[in-house]
Amino acid sequence: MTETKRLFVENIWYAAAWEYEVQAADNKLARTICEVPLVFFARESGGYVALDNRCCHRAAPLHTGRVEGDCIRCMYHGMLYNPQGEVIEIPGQDRISKSHRVRSYPVVSKGGMIWIWMGDPTLADEQAIYDFPPLSDPDNWRGFPQESYLHYAANWLLIVDNLADFSHVAFVHTNTLGGSEAYAYSTVAENIEKLDDGFSMVRWHRGSPPPPYHKAVIPPAERDKPVDRCNTISMHLPGIFLMETLFAPAGWDAAANDRSVCREYRNCQFMTPETRHTTHFFWNYLHNTDRDKPEVTASLQNSLLEGFMEDKVIIEAQQKLLEQSPDFVPVGIKADEAFVHFRRVWAKRLQAEDAAQPLVFKDNPRRIL
Amino acid sequence: MTETKRLFVENIWYAAAWEYEVQAADNKLARTICEVPLVFFARESGGYVALDNRCCHRAAPLHTGRVEGDCIRCMYHGMLYNPQGEVIEIPGQDRISKSHRVRSYPVVSKGGMIWIWMGDPTLADEQAIYDFPPLSDPDNWRGFPQESYLHYAANWLLIVDNLADFSHVAFVHTNTLGGSEAYAYSTVAENIEKLDDGFSMVRWHRGSPPPPYHKAVIPPAERDKPVDRCNTISMHLPGIFLMETLFAPAGWDAAANDRSVCREYRNCQFMTPETRHTTHFFWNYLHNTDRDKPEVTASLQNSLLEGFMEDKVIIEAQQKLLEQSPDFVPVGIKADEAFVHFRRVWAKRLQAEDAAQPLVFKDNPRRIL
Amino acid sequence: MTETKRLFVENIWYAAAWEYEVQAADNKLARTICEVPLVFFARESGGYVALDNRCCHRAAPLHTGRVEGDCIRCMYHGMLYNPQGEVIEIPGQDRISKSHRVRSYPVVSKGGMIWIWMGDPTLADEQAIYDFPPLSDPDNWRGFPQESYLHYAANWLLIVDNLADFSHVAFVHTNTLGGSEAYAYSTVAENIEKLDDGFSMVRWHRGSPPPPYHKAVIPPAERDKPVDRCNTISMHLPGIFLMETLFAPAGWDAAANDRSVCREYRNCQFMTPETRHTTHFFWNYLHNTDRDKPEVTASLQNSLLEGFMEDKVIIEAQQKLLEQSPDFVPVGIKADEAFVHFRRVWAKRLQAEDAAQPLVFKDNPRRIL
Repeated sequence: MTETKRLFVENIWYAAAWEYEVQAADNKLARTICEVPLVFFARESGGYVALDNRCCHRAAPLHTGRVEGDCIRCMYHGMLYNPQGEVIEIPGQDRISKSHRVRSYPVVSKGGMIWIWMGDPTLADEQAIYDFPPLSDPDNWRGFPQESYLHYAANWLLIVDNLADFSHVAFVHTNTLGGSEAYAYSTVAENIEKLDDGFSMVRWHRGSPPPPYHKAVIPPAERDKPVDRCNTISMHLPGIFLMETLFAPAGWDAAANDRSVCREYRNCQFMTPETRHTTHFFWNYLHNTDRDKPEVTASLQNSLLEGFMEDKVIIEAQQKLLEQSPDFVPVGIKADEAFVHFRRVWAKRLQAEDAAQPLVFKDNPRRIL
Repeated sequence: MTETKRLFVENIWYAAAWEYEVQAADNKLARTICEVPLVFFARESGGYVALDNRCCHRAAPLHTGRVEGDCIRCMYHGMLYNPQGEVIEIPGQDRISKSHRVRSYPVVSKGGMIWIWMGDPTLADEQAIYDFPPLSDPDNWRGFPQESYLHYAANWLLIVDNLADFSHVAFVHTNTLGGSEAYAYSTVAENIEKLDDGFSMVRWHRGSPPPPYHKAVIPPAERDKPVDRCNTISMHLPGIFLMETLFAPAGWDAAANDRSVCREYRNCQFMTPETRHTTHFFWNYLHNTDRDKPEVTASLQNSLLEGFMEDKVIIEAQQKLLEQSPDFVPVGIKADEAFVHFRRVWAKRLQAEDAAQPLVFKDNPRRIL
Repeated sequence: MTETKRLFVENIWYAAAWEYEVQAADNKLARTICEVPLVFFARESGGYVALDNRCCHRAAPLHTGRVEGDCIRCMYHGMLYNPQGEVIEIPGQDRISKSHRVRSYPVVSKGGMIWIWMGDPTLADEQAIYDFPPLSDPDNWRGFPQESYLHYAANWLLIVDNLADFSHVAFVHTNTLGGSEAYAYSTVAENIEKLDDGFSMVRWHRGSPPPPYHKAVIPPAERDKPVDRCNTISMHLPGIFLMETLFAPAGWDAAANDRSVCREYRNCQFMTPETRHTTHFFWNYLHNTDRDKPEVTASLQNSLLEGFMEDKVIIEAQQKLLEQSPDFVPVGIKADEAFVHFRRVWAKRLQAEDAAQPLVFKDNPRRIL
């Protein structure tokens, strides 16, 4: 990555939290995104609010505060904030100045996910969110209602790297999502498209046994029949991964495209930097057959989680090794093409924001610590 | 705070340890104060000694050493230190140089507390210690004999801030020490006096139900009768908080000042920096009625501890948020007057010491690590 | 220590791991030495291999890889490394460049210990390893087969210091390895020889009761008879401690040197820096009588471990105090002669390597974190 003091692109939508996470946290969730400590809360009139999680008075946490209608009250000295982050009550004091406020961030819910815009609010365009239709289409797609969050002790770009080269499926996920090491030798990424904000690609694996996670949910009679598997992937800034997976009987005529004999999955994975060293990882994996069988949904959730934990072990070890080794110079292979492009696109956006508004670190004479 | 490399005022008395803490630690207590690692031990001839907790030879800890009369022996190679910090025996070696010594710090016991002077010993004036009479007056005041220590993962000034504005009692301690949120709206600090070394103030809460911690120890017949509560507070450098609390029947004539119908409490809280990020917190809460009822003493200790833990949660969260947010600029409210003065007084003392004897950080060519 | 950016001498053999440690770790052991993360694995054709534990591609850990014959495969994207550290297979890619490699380090096994050379491989001379004969001589010496490793949260030179002055035995190990505090007053190091790479010395303790660890393994009839104890020590760079211990009946004629009435022990302790703050500590303690009695071996192992834990407590406390006290200036005593020489020899070697090949820390434009 090109050197810059700026660590994160700001004028972009980040996946911040599943709605159910905020609800489960008594409607107030403390979460740090891009090294900014935030509080998310559900407003009575609907929707969510994201504020800096530090009362403007003495930096007391707002997430231990109390939601009152559409507002939140700091439970240290009782200052009340409206959704715009303005203080509207200071107990024991009449006058409130314009400085009595915290920053409020644009948030939008789509498909159960709360998205946040970390930059200039006037640029926040809701249409730019990568809405993933299966998340909002329970009639056709069934995913997991909860527990679709993992915390990674690793930089989010290492997870992007991971998802940009599916040959790892052969070695990391042999007995879960992959099925055999042959995958790495006999399949290649096709149609790699370099997008302005990421990449897309297709990877076919033809005539192989169904991989373990899929085998576990199909009828016994199908389990020994070879399949053609096709993964269609796209990855977008800052860390939006969307995938369509299709299993067809081996020899399926892709041009004819008769989906009635196929089983399909939809997968989203959202990687959001918590800090430069840690990542919020959100995901879901949806199926379009057996939608009424909870045991199928559960089996898929367990299998995928098992696979993701295999990744996590490697990626967190990578993180540690890279922190120990600032001198490490990576040596590329052919398969790096996609993620090299992604990192280049990210670096370019970072530089552009830095050029437009350079980060200045100056002494803070009013610091209280 | 004004920027200075010096972090702590040195020519001042700090609360270092309750005497019972040293005794309970086999008469040798390791404790860091103002980022200086110290050992405290009880001398046979009475009183206590505080030395740098690093043998001058190779920095082995003295607190794992052995007290011998008024001396302490390093149990690494056996060097014996007298209370002045001078080595008086090196096993296997006759000659002892003047460099064989560690720094010894003036210490004085008052009211069960060991006070330490971190600066120039020739300036240490015992009379300057804020002796709190109730601590030494068991005939009139009953407190807790032990367990009056908490360790805070926060800068001590955040605790000073907390105690300088009692409106927090309304929101942080509603169900323990406060009683209702009305406290923040209907009471104000009165008679705020800015002292050379801190501040004092009075806060009345008139005609309200007794707060929960008090209600728990008064006779059932009194529990529903409204009271007038008066807190008289003073705070002194470096972190000495003293409070008189009086509960009178509502409508009590303060001018007549008939204390026979009142119940009174005395409270001290001593905040001593361990490091810039952590604090030793000492306290006691004494009552003058029911002095022979251990259940009253125990109830007050439990209630106050419950209240202090409510503060601790907020203050330690503040500390974390401020560490994450070096750019945070606090926005003042009216009630900040007292602690803003306190921080100004502290900063002035710090600057004065820095001007008199600037801190110089230089390379140490003899370092062994 | 003289200031240098270089922290560790490289052209020297370090004790890296007992062979049984690698075997017990499924033949692949991750271990950091001199702040370099390494993987050690057993090759099918015999012997061991040490490589940088970071795949050259994306720094994935090799120790979670798979040993295949004499090679190890990274289980992220499947790159296969030969013992020279060269990539010999990239799944899905034909061309392999010369840059596709990690560093391979010379390793040699002697006496069950794997030694590693961290510097220029062309200078690695196997003869320079301090082979300790008793480790390879089960007919005459019996030690412990396993569990002869400790991890220290301290710089290794603090352990060297410890072993360079046996007067600490009197105070640290009174009730385990020492026997009485008199040891520090009545015995002195004799024949201190300053070597090019360390030092050697002899220490006699004459006419004293057998120390507890020895008393526990000798026949009851001997336990009350005084003994003459002689420790002959040598210490070599980077942290190789070798000791011969002899217990003779008090008044034994050392010139006549009749060993048939003696009991002897052999001890090695190898201190290898993991990081500047932490140390790998390897040891064994071998006896030449009662070689067929496992209870004697076990008693010695337990006694010595107990003694080493007594050291560890002090040394790790020293480390903490020194980290807290960068200004600490040690004051020498007579007994420091040996370790002062050792540190001087180490510093000289460090400077020489630094002069020959200065460390340059430069920006890494290709870093991926």
